[in-house]
Amino acid sequence: MSSLFIPPPACLLRPLEVPHRYLFGPGPSNVSPRVQASGARQMIGHLHREMLEIMDDIKKGIQYAFQTQNSMTIAIRARVNTIVKLPGGYFTNEEIEQALYEHKPVLFFLTHGESSSGVVHPLDGIGELCHNQNCLFLVDAVASLGGSPIVMDKQGIDVLYTASQKVLSSPPGTAPISFSEGACKKIFNRKTKPVSFLLDMSWLANYWGCDGKPARMYHHTGPISGLFALRESLAALSEMGLEKSWTQHNKIAEHLHKGLESLGLKLFVQEKSLRLPTITTIAVPPGYDWREIIGYIMKHHNIEISGGLGSSSGMVLRIGLMGYNCNQANADMVLMALRDALKHCHKSKV
Amino acid sequence: MSSLFIPPPACLLRPLEVPHRYLFGPGPSNVSPRVQASGARQMIGHLHREMLEIMDDIKKGIQYAFQTQNSMTIAIRARVNTIVKLPGGYFTNEEIEQALYEHKPVLFFLTHGESSSGVVHPLDGIGELCHNQNCLFLVDAVASLGGSPIVMDKQGIDVLYTASQKVLSSPPGTAPISFSEGACKKIFNRKTKPVSFLLDMSWLANYWGCDGKPARMYHHTGPISGLFALRESLAALSEMGLEKSWTQHNKIAEHLHKGLESLGLKLFVQEKSLRLPTITTIAVPPGYDWREIIGYIMKHHNIEISGGLGSSSGMVLRIGLMGYNCNQANADMVLMALRDALKHCHKSKV
Repeated sequence: MSSLFIPPPACLLRPLEVPHRYLFGPGPSNVSPRVQASGARQMIGHLHREMLEIMDDIKKGIQYAFQTQNSMTIAIRARVNTIVKLPGGYFTNEEIEQALYEHKPVLFFLTHGESSSGVVHPLDGIGELCHNQNCLFLVDAVASLGGSPIVMDKQGIDVLYTASQKVLSSPPGTAPISFSEGACKKIFNRKTKPVSFLLDMSWLANYWGCDGKPARMYHHTGPISGLFALRESLAALSEMGLEKSWTQHNKIAEHLHKGLESLGLKLFVQEKSLRLPTITTIAVPPGYDWREIIGYIMKHHNIEISGGLGSSSGMVLRIGLMGYNCNQANADMVLMALRDALKHCHKSKV
Repeated sequence: MSSLFIPPPACLLRPLEVPHRYLFGPGPSNVSPRVQASGARQMIGHLHREMLEIMDDIKKGIQYAFQTQNSMTIAIRARVNTIVKLPGGYFTNEEIEQALYEHKPVLFFLTHGESSSGVVHPLDGIGELCHNQNCLFLVDAVASLGGSPIVMDKQGIDVLYTASQKVLSSPPGTAPISFSEGACKKIFNRKTKPVSFLLDMSWLANYWGCDGKPARMYHHTGPISGLFALRESLAALSEMGLEKSWTQHNKIAEHLHKGLESLGLKLFVQEKSLRLPTITTIAVPPGYDWREIIGYIMKHHNIEISGGLGSSSGMVLRIGLMGYNCNQANADMVLMALRDALKHCHKSKV
């Protein structure tokens, strides 16, 4: 076998090292022991009866978390891109109505939990405005679902999606998504073919048993471990109950905000009702270098917090306390770390 | 909180059940205890230094497994579609040369391990034929990599990909892929934009540190657990060594083939040198219903074997013994199960 000219790499002959970290940034979050355990389960076939049952559990769990009766509710493997423009506050329903009237879009897209600015956008009434203009209403709830109230069907949302690695506290890699009847009609009657077989919703609907057909066709091999984990995180949410989860995120956020203010820090979002409970944005304190603060906290406290993203870059620090991480002990830990950082990081004269 | 009208689903208040199964079909395969353990590790940030090191380990591991020096070597999250037409044998190099000359394609695509028919397609010399016609050579090694010799650079392959859930014995969800310099030139000089941001190779190249730029941009949140597992499975392959892995798959396949013939069964691929060592196809024995055999073996032996796929559907039974599953005890177990099935399944007069 002299044909091999690339030897086994030395780095792979060393054991895997995964340091312990408190992930209090905008995501991914730490996962619970229950979710960790599910990741260690042996494989089963991706179309075995038990696997299809687990997928059914997941569908039910998403329907509960989203508060929807849509049968077209699945978990796709997605790379959700959350780089969006900073909205500079929020839009009033009047402004949205005006824009819908002017532009007559087929789809109106709104980010519920804006993770770069820390704003939770109001949702009530917008679905109706959209439907009056024959427009679909799509909501990104990646950073908010489970932590801030969202009630898909009642709010007239046509497409709603989130991610596994935020409030659901699963490993990244799956994205719950649900489609209303109106959205399905649009999708299944499209005249141009989907650009990619892998995101062809009619195949995905069949794979997830959403199309009413008895047989499942082989479309792709689903991420079995990822689905075990998603199932367990939805089960944890079901056991706790959505309302309690919302209350908990709200309570911990308020505790955190109070603590931050008593450290002399300023919250980036002024209006209380617009503050996203899952991810808190703090104005970078004058005279400090945000990179130094973040680096100090990681180095001395093993805690990840994060800087801004996109247009909030350089302006904010971001603390995420989501799902499994959302409790008072963690809030106190990050407050203590921040106090320590403010004391030890270099403060230039301004 | 009277706004909730969908209660927590009862199915999620029951524990997760994952039955033990021997996965001896065409994939996914069972995973090793080492890979299982990696799935239970806590999250770290997707851009933490340690995570980038793990991604570097993976790149090195893929370069070793593929036998390539390409720097553009990454693991994407993919749904690899392996539904292809049954080639009815294989193509000679003369036939390929003739076709390249006639059609002058920009890309020639070949499946190395054809998992539906159980054929391993010869590769030597084809890269040169392609390059003579200014054509790129793309090879699907989903079902063969690690089990049957493939030496990317020496064989002049421009794009090579495989999947995590076959010989690598990781959970499904990641797909190692590598691009030659010629393929990179083609990709990065394309005039039309990629149809999808998520598969934009210039972003992916940056995320995996293949573009030589010092800073990693936020493109997507990588599947952290999936990458832990892929790292561990590539480490296991590095420890064993590619040559030993090829020899082992060959040895076990021969042992299995001999056993099958002594049961009176006929191998679907007649020519020995064309038999894929990872997945064995057996002609459905006359008088038997293939569904009944598969169902019997699953029910009484907890073993998954599979029927055909696409144009081999109804014609073959398929046994996969790959990676962690590839040993003599497993081969003997599936032979015993088949003997039992042939005895107990209904045999109609033909």
